Formats: sequence, structure tokens, C-alpha cells
Amino acid sequence: MSENKIPYKIYLEEDEMPKAWYNLRADMKNKPAPLLNPGTGKPLTKEELAPIFCEELVNQELDDTTPYIDIPTEIRDFYKMYRPSPLVRAYCLEKKLGTPAKIYYKFEGNNTSGSHKLNSAIAQAYYAKKQGLKGVTTETGAGQWGTALSMACSYFDLDCKVFMVKVSYEQKPFRREVMRTYGASVVPSPSETTEVGKKILAEHPGTTGSLGCAISEAVEVATKSEGYRYVLGSVLNQVLLHQSVIGLETKIALDKYGIKPDMIIGCAGGGSNLGGLIGPFMGEKLRGEADYRIIAVEPASCPSFTRGTYAYDFCDTGMICPLAKMYTLGSSFIPSANHAGGLRFHGMSSTLSQLYHDGYMEATSVEQTSVFEAAEMFARVEGILPAPESSHAIRVAIDEALKCKETGEEKTIVFGLTGTGYFDLVAYQKYNDGEMSDYIPTDEEIAASVAKLPKVE
Amino acid sequence: MSENKIPYKIYLEEDEMPKAWYNLRADMKNKPAPLLNPGTGKPLTKEELAPIFCEELVNQELDDTTPYIDIPTEIRDFYKMYRPSPLVRAYCLEKKLGTPAKIYYKFEGNNTSGSHKLNSAIAQAYYAKKQGLKGVTTETGAGQWGTALSMACSYFDLDCKVFMVKVSYEQKPFRREVMRTYGASVVPSPSETTEVGKKILAEHPGTTGSLGCAISEAVEVATKSEGYRYVLGSVLNQVLLHQSVIGLETKIALDKYGIKPDMIIGCAGGGSNLGGLIGPFMGEKLRGEADYRIIAVEPASCPSFTRGTYAYDFCDTGMICPLAKMYTLGSSFIPSANHAGGLRFHGMSSTLSQLYHDGYMEATSVEQTSVFEAAEMFARVEGILPAPESSHAIRVAIDEALKCKETGEEKTIVFGLTGTGYFDLVAYQKYNDGEMSDYIPTDEEIAASVAKLPKVE
Repeated sequence: MSENKIPYKIYLEEDEMPKAWYNLRADMKNKPAPLLNPGTGKPLTKEELAPIFCEELVNQELDDTTPYIDIPTEIRDFYKMYRPSPLVRAYCLEKKLGTPAKIYYKFEGNNTSGSHKLNSAIAQAYYAKKQGLKGVTTETGAGQWGTALSMACSYFDLDCKVFMVKVSYEQKPFRREVMRTYGASVVPSPSETTEVGKKILAEHPGTTGSLGCAISEAVEVATKSEGYRYVLGSVLNQVLLHQSVIGLETKIALDKYGIKPDMIIGCAGGGSNLGGLIGPFMGEKLRGEADYRIIAVEPASCPSFTRGTYAYDFCDTGMICPLAKMYTLGSSFIPSANHAGGLRFHGMSSTLSQLYHDGYMEATSVEQTSVFEAAEMFARVEGILPAPESSHAIRVAIDEALKCKETGEEKTIVFGLTGTGYFDLVAYQKYNDGEMSDYIPTDEEIAASVAKLPKVE
Repeated sequence: MSENKIPYKIYLEEDEMPKAWYNLRADMKNKPAPLLNPGTGKPLTKEELAPIFCEELVNQELDDTTPYIDIPTEIRDFYKMYRPSPLVRAYCLEKKLGTPAKIYYKFEGNNTSGSHKLNSAIAQAYYAKKQGLKGVTTETGAGQWGTALSMACSYFDLDCKVFMVKVSYEQKPFRREVMRTYGASVVPSPSETTEVGKKILAEHPGTTGSLGCAISEAVEVATKSEGYRYVLGSVLNQVLLHQSVIGLETKIALDKYGIKPDMIIGCAGGGSNLGGLIGPFMGEKLRGEADYRIIAVEPASCPSFTRGTYAYDFCDTGMICPLAKMYTLGSSFIPSANHAGGLRFHGMSSTLSQLYHDGYMEATSVEQTSVFEAAEMFARVEGILPAPESSHAIRVAIDEALKCKETGEEKTIVFGLTGTGYFDLVAYQKYNDGEMSDYIPTDEEIAASVAKLPKVE
């Protein structure tokens, strides 16, 4: 292997790193549907969004025409602390599988948040600071986003309030300590500290919570507190914009070595990693310059792309957020408590939903135990213990590589390894003890929550 | 900051990575004292060491004349999966401190073992495999070495039995799960599975264990099991040899940019990181080619350099291991249970002990709460949550940088950031809750264990 020309890890030099984010929407003919005001059913204006989000982030949220947006120097400096992330050639995994496929992964886990989430957290914290705010509120599921935001807020000396989905808060006490070390306050959601939290607790006593609940609580606190705004780690257009740094770096690294991928695989929860990873490749596809298979992988226990409905829905359970058009399981859908890790949002990025609807990408769902099987194999040969989320992409990358083994095709597979599983050891323990099970929602369960979708003209 | 010529992170290209380890002993006029047979008091021969260690590792252990030893291709290939590690310019820490000092750290935490320990684990597993062994046994304290060895054994398909110091086993259940995910078996030490374990438990019921106990158990199992050998993650000459990859990479990276450090700072438990980091710099110093301040930092609760005795002692509590001449607190010394993380070995590498004795390096000890204060500051500005071990070096690097602030000197400080603190959140929680305390052993306590040192002519 040593004499191979492509190194194990491709790193960019600092001056090769992207200086602007790529705004995928600019190249879409069918733009993603706008956010609607749930009261009026009309598209939300800047003025209506301003009490929720920072001004500059509202601009980014609504801008679907500017293809490149400069990354401010302060953010680029922060990126230099933990980026570029390596594009890794998975030589050892290829050897283990005995596949002629060439497998690459973009590894975003080499920072204390343990994932790609820091790419958008630092951007959102920067704009909040620039606007002179006191602090921000947010929700977190598996805890990666909350950790990332805590780190970003600590860097810019902003207050940070995190509502953490109760089941994760209990399963991952150490995530909370990391956030506290970075100075954030962390509240298990649903909580008694908000009106919407009290209401949800009254209706569903003993609930383990959901991202949708936690979003409602965080939005309530942001809009009721002077000098605060709400920030979100996924789903939004602005997040996909910031996360485009993943795909841009990936493309620069591949181009340096003249590598053209056949397929790009990413896990999909709200779409932050997937949208960021595929951005520049999807752009080429939209402009007719290149073709790639683009595959979204979601958990069978929370299958918004593969079993959801393309419709307007609330982003939160408390129904106080704007309506977004997306593939959704209904905002009242709560994944089974035996579902490990993240990827538990009921909906999906509007941008990715539109692209999927228009046939530019595929989606597939995988079951939990097969995901951990892939995770363990990957860990043992590639030396990185992956996050359960990321392992969804590993599963499908392995499956595609095994298909190549059968057909003898030397396809080039790129997947996103969004993070590490160091805070997911309760789930790994279950898997190691043979106590992990799969859960696939029934058609009736999904139909029940979809039936509650809001009526939009 | 952006226009500064030195990047935030200096990475070597694959072909710039070291192809041979550096054997510091070759340049020492006063060689480290040999290991002795505790029965005869005579230096141990190859034949006597062969039942404990792999043949090739015995050769490396005893070789104090060959300056460079080739790194086998298989190990270099594995290194390429997670190395080179970055040499980071701590721009943000410098800014926070307002110091004219230039601070660099070599970050070894970007792998799933979370530390530099993998550098030697993969080498020791390789030689065990090459010798046709079935497996290896070892001990682990904080868990980094056990994790590293599990990863290495999994890669080479070797069985791996880990005796984990009981207090760490209980405080760090997730470390155990990582090891299990890599296929290792993990036993809390002292245990009822060995003769020496039973003896220690009988004498000290309720003991929280020590590295010294765990070593005794691991050695017993290795020497009594067909096809097994014992491996150790620190202290030994062979380990310092493998860890020289840290210092070699650091020196290549510094030389690329024409940087000459004034001082090199490393934390010291058994000496694996410190010996590896300082190796090539100490070599220059020994050969009279350059001068550097070299500073070992140890915990005030386990101060072998600063308060120990330079004498022959057992490496283990059960007194079944060879005798090594080293700075030691006595093999019966067990650090206070409130001591967090690693750096809890009663002795110190013989090589480093000789160098310290000969005046080639300094040593200092720091208290736990001040270490966590430094860790938190570092995490907040540099974005990496450091291991408690590594944070000993951070503490002294910060103190030296603050001295520069007073004097106005633009000194260049290099320190070793051995790993991440993702499995040390119980300790961080104590610190966050204001419940962490310091413990400094009394002179009487140290005198009591030193009084039990073996008599050697």
C-alpha cells in the first residue's frame, strides 16, 4: 500500500481552504419552498424572522440567488483551529472488504464537539456577537450541536442556553459536562421552565422528549428574552450554507488528485451534514456539468425521506415555529426510545426535500443493529470509533463497496464521517451486550402523526 | 492573525514522516542503569526477559547503542491512518494570555485511543504478531493505554487482556466499552483471577488499585499462559523508542519553518510522552549541538521526580517484575483516590531518571485544581478539551508564557498535548461543581513507602 500515490489522508494547506460558502439554492431551478407564517399562511418576511434569528442569518436564510457568500475572517480564523478536516482514503476498510471500490471519507470528528456541527455553530455565534446580542438559545438531541454551540459561544463570550432532549440528557451526562465546561447552561427538555414545556409535560407526562419539543422551548425563551436569539443546528438553509465548507474542501481535495467520485453518501437527520457534503457536487449536477449518485441514508426508525410526506409542517412539536415544506413524519412523531444517537428529527431540510422531490438524489433507510455492525467493523480497521449517526453512511458505503466486489467495478465512493462516538458508549454497550434491537414504526403510527399536519392552502 | 506566515496547524506530508525511531540512549554518556533480576541482583539477560516480552522488543529494550531503528512498513502504514499529528500554533491562547511568547503544542489526541499511547501499542502488537503469539496482556490506569492496545490488537487480530486499575474501571465505564468494541477483555484490578491479585486483596481489602498492582497481575497471566507476552505502555526504553515519533515529527515541523524552541514541556507519569517528545531535542543537547530548557511536569499527588528517591525499585506492587533504577516513591505508594486521570505510576522511566539525575532536564509538580483551571481556559480558547494528564503541561506552559508577559521576552514554548479528556468528564464534573480538591502526600507517607525499597548492592 505504501507506494500508492494517494496518501491515507489528504489535507489542504491553509491557503487552499474555502474563502466563501457555496449557496446551493442559487443553482436550483425549483427553489425550496419558503417558510410560512403559521398564522397567515404567507411567506415569512425579514421583519417577521428578525425576533427569532440574527439579522445577517435571516438574510442568508432568504437568499436563494447569491451562489457564493464570503466567510468572514474571524470565522475563517476559527476554522483554521480545527479545519481543514482530512479526506481519508479507507485503504484498510477496502482491504478488509476485498473490494475493488475506492472508498474515501471526509472526517469531521477531530474537534471537541465531535462532529461537523461546529462549522455552523461558529458562524451563528459570530453573527450574534456582531449584532451585539447577549446570548443565544438552542436545542440539542444527541448533544453534538449543543456542544458545538457552547464552544462557539465561549469563543465569542456569548451566553448559551441549551435545551437537551431528555432521553439524551439522561443517556449522555458527560455531554452536559462538556457544555458546562464551555460555560453553557443545559436544561432537560421538556422542562417546567417554559410555557410550551409545561404544556407538553401536561399532555404527555413521562415523555422522553424530542427535538421538536426542545426547539419549541428554545424559541420561546429566545423570543421572550431581551438580547437573545434562537439558533438551530440543522434543517435551515443558512446551516446548509455554512456546512458547504465540508463539500468544498472535499471537492478541492479530490480535484488535487484528479479523483472523480461515482457516488456521495451522507447520513440525513435534518440534513446539515448531507447538504453540506453534497453541495458543490449537487451544484455541478444541477448545472449539468457532472453527474453523481447522491445517496441520503436515514434510520429506519425515523424515515422522513423514505416514508414521510412532502408537505408543509411545523419544525417543532409545540407548533410555535414557522412552517417549512419538507418530507415529514409529522411534528408529533417521536422516534422510539430504543433509537440510539441523533437523526431523530421528524422533518428534513426544505432544500434537500426539493432536490429529492425533483429526483436529484436517492434515499435509503437502514436498521440500527446493522448500523452498529458496520460501525464496529469500521472502528476495528480504520481506527476511529464512529458516531451512530455517521455509521448510517458507513453501512451504505460498505454495502455499495460489496456490490462492487460482486460486479468487479472499481467505483469511487465518498462518504461523510460526521463524527466520533465517544459519547455514545451506552449505545455501544447495548450492542456489545447483544441487547440492541431494531424498531420500525408501523404505517399506522406514521399515518397518525401525518394526519395532524397543518392545513396549508 | 490571518496574515501570519506560520499556519495554525503544521502537518507533515506522508513522505516527510519519520522512517526510523530515535534511540536516545545511544547519545547518552551515562547510560540508564540496567534492569536487574530481583532474585540475583544481576542485570537481566535476553533469555530472562524472553518469557515476559516479545523477542524483538527485548532487543530494543537492551539496545543502548543504535541511534536509529527502522520503523517496519506495516507500522508506518498504520501510523499513516492517524499520523502525522498536527503541531499547532496556539494563537488563540497567546492572545488570551496577552503574552509575547510563541506557544506551540504537538497534539496527539486525534485518534480513538485519545492519546499518544497508540504509537507504541501498534509497534508492540506488530512484534507480538510477527513472533506468532496468540495475544498479549497489559495493565491500564486512566484507560488510554488499554484502549490503544485494544485498537492495535484488533488491527493485527491478536487477543488482548487488560487489567484496569479499579478506581478508573469504576470512574470510566465507557473506556471499558471502547476496549470491548475493539474486542479486548477488561478486568478490574486487583482481581481474584490471579495469585498476586488475591494476595493484594487479602492484604488491602477495599483497595482502589494502582498501576503497580495491575502490572503484577498482567505479568502473571502473560508468563503463565501459552502464546502470551506482557506489554507495557510507559516506563520502558522500548516505549520511549516508539514514542520518539512524536519528537521527530515535532522537530521536522519546526525545522520546516525555521523555528527554534527555547523550552520543551511535557507531562510525566512513567515518561512515555515526555521521553518521546523531547527525544531528538535531548539528543542535540547531549551531543552539544543545541541547548533547550526541558521541563517535566508531574502531579503534586504523585511526585516521583520532585520528591522521590533515585534507587532500584520494583516496577510493580506485587514485586514480581524486574528492578529498575529510577526516581521512585516506592512500589507500595498508591496515589490518593481523589487524584484524577493518569500520571499515577510510582516510578519513572530509567532513561529519563538518568537524564534528570545528570542535570539535563528540570522537573516541577503542579496541583490538581490549578491543572483543571488551565485545562478549562485552554479548552475555551483552543477548542480542544484536554486530558487531565496533558493539562499538567498546559499549566506550566501558561505559567511560562505569563512570565514572558512580565519580562517581555518572546520565548518559543513547545509542549506536548498528549490527548483529549472525553473520558474524564467525571473529573471535569467535580471541577465544574467546585468539588475538586488537592492532595499532597506528606513526607511521612513517602518515607513509609520508600523505606520498603528493595536492598540492592
